[in-house]
Amino acid sequence: MTRPPPSTPPVATREISGLPTVGDGSGLSPDNRYYPEEIQLALRNRGLPLEALRYPVTPAGLHYLLVHFDIPAVETGRWQLTVGGQVARPLQLSLADIKARRAVTVPVTMECAGNGRARLSPRSLSQPWLCEAVSTAQWTGTPLRGVLEEAGIVEGAEEIVFTGEDWGVQGGEVQPYQRSLTVTEALRDDVLLVYAMNGEPLPAQHGYPLRLLVPGWYGMTSVKWLTAIEVSAEPFDGFQMVKSYRDSLDAEDPGLPISLIRPKSLVIPPGIPDFVTRVRILSPGPVTLQGRAWVGRADIATVEVSLDGGTLWRDAELEAPMHGPAWRGWTYRWEAKPGRYTLCVRATDTTGETQPFGQRWNYQGMGNNMVQRVEVMVVP
Amino acid sequence: MTRPPPSTPPVATREISGLPTVGDGSGLSPDNRYYPEEIQLALRNRGLPLEALRYPVTPAGLHYLLVHFDIPAVETGRWQLTVGGQVARPLQLSLADIKARRAVTVPVTMECAGNGRARLSPRSLSQPWLCEAVSTAQWTGTPLRGVLEEAGIVEGAEEIVFTGEDWGVQGGEVQPYQRSLTVTEALRDDVLLVYAMNGEPLPAQHGYPLRLLVPGWYGMTSVKWLTAIEVSAEPFDGFQMVKSYRDSLDAEDPGLPISLIRPKSLVIPPGIPDFVTRVRILSPGPVTLQGRAWVGRADIATVEVSLDGGTLWRDAELEAPMHGPAWRGWTYRWEAKPGRYTLCVRATDTTGETQPFGQRWNYQGMGNNMVQRVEVMVVP
Repeated sequence: MTRPPPSTPPVATREISGLPTVGDGSGLSPDNRYYPEEIQLALRNRGLPLEALRYPVTPAGLHYLLVHFDIPAVETGRWQLTVGGQVARPLQLSLADIKARRAVTVPVTMECAGNGRARLSPRSLSQPWLCEAVSTAQWTGTPLRGVLEEAGIVEGAEEIVFTGEDWGVQGGEVQPYQRSLTVTEALRDDVLLVYAMNGEPLPAQHGYPLRLLVPGWYGMTSVKWLTAIEVSAEPFDGFQMVKSYRDSLDAEDPGLPISLIRPKSLVIPPGIPDFVTRVRILSPGPVTLQGRAWVGRADIATVEVSLDGGTLWRDAELEAPMHGPAWRGWTYRWEAKPGRYTLCVRATDTTGETQPFGQRWNYQGMGNNMVQRVEVMVVP
Repeated sequence: MTRPPPSTPPVATREISGLPTVGDGSGLSPDNRYYPEEIQLALRNRGLPLEALRYPVTPAGLHYLLVHFDIPAVETGRWQLTVGGQVARPLQLSLADIKARRAVTVPVTMECAGNGRARLSPRSLSQPWLCEAVSTAQWTGTPLRGVLEEAGIVEGAEEIVFTGEDWGVQGGEVQPYQRSLTVTEALRDDVLLVYAMNGEPLPAQHGYPLRLLVPGWYGMTSVKWLTAIEVSAEPFDGFQMVKSYRDSLDAEDPGLPISLIRPKSLVIPPGIPDFVTRVRILSPGPVTLQGRAWVGRADIATVEVSLDGGTLWRDAELEAPMHGPAWRGWTYRWEAKPGRYTLCVRATDTTGETQPFGQRWNYQGMGNNMVQRVEVMVVP
């Protein structure tokens, strides 16, 4: 029968032979097999579909999401933010109180500390991110500093503990999700209490009604469903500080805490995908490769592209930066000729740190910024 | 140090011993291991986090999502809907033209045909859903029938072919995503061309600017990024009709096409989760188990709950139905005593069809409505 006239085919409508099959790796780690519990986590958390890197500001419904325990059902009427501990004037703030304060809106790139975990071998059994746990939103909120100054931090206080309304069990311990910051870090101008994402109230899954936002840090620090801020005279010894989010060698090694985002970059996979393997199919001719690069508190200095799996590298062109601690767009012109390619991209920041090509292994699979690999077939 | 005063702990703050570990199954299929390509698909598609079953209408950012190829970047200015083929008056409609037509808004429960695939053994290598590919949205659009009547279907026409703007390769074949309906099915009153989801323009990932919506059918029929409707004198032989979405025995067996949603039900996992295994921890006492049940074109007749992994079943209480072809809420009062439980729930529809307890295997892993299992520990 006559097929309907669709939009122009991006690749001539035809049979493609020689496609990779599942299990041969397709640029992934072919020797890895994953547990049902990891699949279960991957299905409820969600990465940024890589083609959505096209949006400088990620639509809220596409923003990556890691929900540590469950998305809590926060009753707005009952909700309040408690500010207590080592302060002169304990506070209880409603959402209206917080919205009445000075508001700022800023684009911030957030990345999960476990991004890249599933590419490590051997790997920690947790959310099995490959590379897609990164996004950028326009966040609106009020500086935490103003609230802390109003409460009046008592001299000698050391840390600020942030508690979410999400409860669960980890390492056998019943706990609400809790993280701390040093007083110095918490008083930075850019640390916010945010109540809006891309101009709308926070979606339930992103922390409604209020979350912490710590630009430059991996996402675990930006506590969602924030309900209590406590100023403490001692370092906080909660599970998510001393047992989790550590760069360690084994289960016994305390290692070092994970904090700022390491330099990283991704390319939008060009052409069209094979459904199951996600290998890309492309017609010969000029192609503008596009992607984004980001780092915690430095700037991106260079982005390089390799078409041969990491042997030859060429500079990409950086786009103008966004007005905030957000990712940087880049482009690279490629004259694609028939053949098979492994696209790689690597970023270097202004401190000189470059993404590693191979894995820099650690026990919990934290902060893995090894370079992405995208398998491409250019078919005449 | 003193911990901040969080909201009331749902379970006494303590150590929990005897938790299952990854790989022992935790109610999943312990003998299954998954490929990196399956993890990659699970990370870009996304299920409904089961606690979000609490919302009768799923927020758009939590709605399950299966993107067959890539989310296309549809240029709104250029976009139009073409209606052609065996019609008296071919049409080219802008989005404004479609919005100017009679509008209806209706809650519709949609489920992916592959939901439950990853619980089959052996399983087809595709998106590895366990049970979470279902959601309900309020969809707004105009009846397809009105558009088809305006175009004037020529006598003898047999099928209507729907083409999306998403391109990819599947089974080695370059193709846009295309599905067909018989003329009779396409002329049903409830088949819509929809442009809004929960009162907002369709998000990019749900088909912006326009998608088909066929209530009662599995989601593959509700073509996203719709760009062409072609009336055909012959049955459509596209890949997604004759090769995929079939209930078949092996790669050679054409089998039968998948169409209407089979009866199914889910329970909101009670208590709080263990982070990695998602096993649930609960304190003793009264618990109201809650969940939802749905079926394609019949009604839900009964929902039953088992606390012992499927031996004893008790009737749950059905909530009032929603005004549309949407899921039905149910509740069940449970006096939880210390111990381990495997919660199961099964729905029976008004035709007498009940969810099977074991797998009803088919080669592509389609329409698997076997009962959910949730492992629970009630700790004193």
